[in-house]
Amino acid sequence: MRNILLTIEYDGSGYHGWQFQPKVPTVQGEIENAIERAMDQKIKVNGTSRTDAGVHACGQCCSFMMDGSIPVEKIAYALNNALPGDIRILSAEEKPEEFHARFSCVAKTYVYKMKEEAGAFDSRFFYRIPKGLDFEKMQKAAAYIKGTHDFKCFQAAGGDEKETTVRTIFDIELKEKEEKNGGRAFDLIVTGDGFLYNMVRIITGTLVDVGMGKITPEELPEIIEGKDRTRAGHTAPPNGLYLAKIYHEKYAPEE
Amino acid sequence: MRNILLTIEYDGSGYHGWQFQPKVPTVQGEIENAIERAMDQKIKVNGTSRTDAGVHACGQCCSFMMDGSIPVEKIAYALNNALPGDIRILSAEEKPEEFHARFSCVAKTYVYKMKEEAGAFDSRFFYRIPKGLDFEKMQKAAAYIKGTHDFKCFQAAGGDEKETTVRTIFDIELKEKEEKNGGRAFDLIVTGDGFLYNMVRIITGTLVDVGMGKITPEELPEIIEGKDRTRAGHTAPPNGLYLAKIYHEKYAPEE
Repeated sequence: MRNILLTIEYDGSGYHGWQFQPKVPTVQGEIENAIERAMDQKIKVNGTSRTDAGVHACGQCCSFMMDGSIPVEKIAYALNNALPGDIRILSAEEKPEEFHARFSCVAKTYVYKMKEEAGAFDSRFFYRIPKGLDFEKMQKAAAYIKGTHDFKCFQAAGGDEKETTVRTIFDIELKEKEEKNGGRAFDLIVTGDGFLYNMVRIITGTLVDVGMGKITPEELPEIIEGKDRTRAGHTAPPNGLYLAKIYHEKYAPEE
Repeated sequence: MRNILLTIEYDGSGYHGWQFQPKVPTVQGEIENAIERAMDQKIKVNGTSRTDAGVHACGQCCSFMMDGSIPVEKIAYALNNALPGDIRILSAEEKPEEFHARFSCVAKTYVYKMKEEAGAFDSRFFYRIPKGLDFEKMQKAAAYIKGTHDFKCFQAAGGDEKETTVRTIFDIELKEKEEKNGGRAFDLIVTGDGFLYNMVRIITGTLVDVGMGKITPEELPEIIEGKDRTRAGHTAPPNGLYLAKIYHEKYAPEE
């Protein structure tokens, strides 16, 4: 058996999330259908992250064991011909037998995109934020999130209650981006060893609440220590969220 | 009564076209709902063009008669607050009583966007075209379409059979666009006094067929004179098509 790793890009707005569910379109379901159609194998793939409905990816991964002699460099092409246009395989590689897209993952980067002047064509891809957010305060608040903490305050109901809620955020950065139309746009880029349910969306909502003056940056350490979801900010919508990069085996940030 | 003209941008991928239909989302339906919610008036709006399901607009227009004293410069803001994010009112103006968004229209510009390397996030917005199309032949073929002709060959079944199929194409241009990822991208820009059912999509498909070598540019005059839909090319999909600009009262191309 060969162990194949796919790197995948998708517009999540037409899907009920990554994870297979019967009778509704899911990204995993489409990829398994494409493998069946293009390579005539009925296979279950292991995705690294179960992204929610409406969440996008430019670097999701999945791995699977397969038979057959198709050259690895032809797999992406074959699958892309069988996939809908809003899911694209960026690359396919052959991995050692013990590799697993989820269990071999040591870090993930999410990007959350938001802008003030979101046009009709931005609506699936950006969170429309209020004008005049205090960017410096948001940056200051974000800095408190870096490091190893119990992040229970940033976990939505529906997360696994028995698991530890301690995670390490290796890097968190809020960048202002140039916009042609004059409105401001921000990207929040967060890399960690793992994320709780809705964690990046709650971090984003908390930073937006800081930008609006509802929460001060200095409250962040207390909010984190308090482990109380109700003290953190709102949950930002799924459409601004992108699973951007998966690190396997070791985490080494790029410049 | 006041006569209001709206200019509208929309991502058509979530709608069953412009025209109101009961029980399914339509752009007209969303705008009429927004007028009712924001301005408390039950009004039927007159759109300039009935764009099909999946077709976009960056310059659709509609007009309607309304009561009330809301300042015209506040109408776009009020409606945008009541509309879904994938429909945006770009402007609102007050017009003389005899003005009508459809009957006062003298020309329309459509843009059809296509690219070779369409990523997952392009899939709602571009037609993915085969690589290596012969751009010069496509431009040569496009030039034959300019002018006043009976365009029956470019009319899909479902068009009004009793109406004249003579139209004037004032301008048609195929432009190559810079792409970061190395693949080629083209915009077809067509301005005419009116368009038959699916006309721009059939023109686009015909030009792509020319680019692939299935039709020669020199066949275009015969195809037009033959008035036979089956001799023209395929119908390009709706997702690459944008209603870009409406000219009211007079047509004066901008530079």
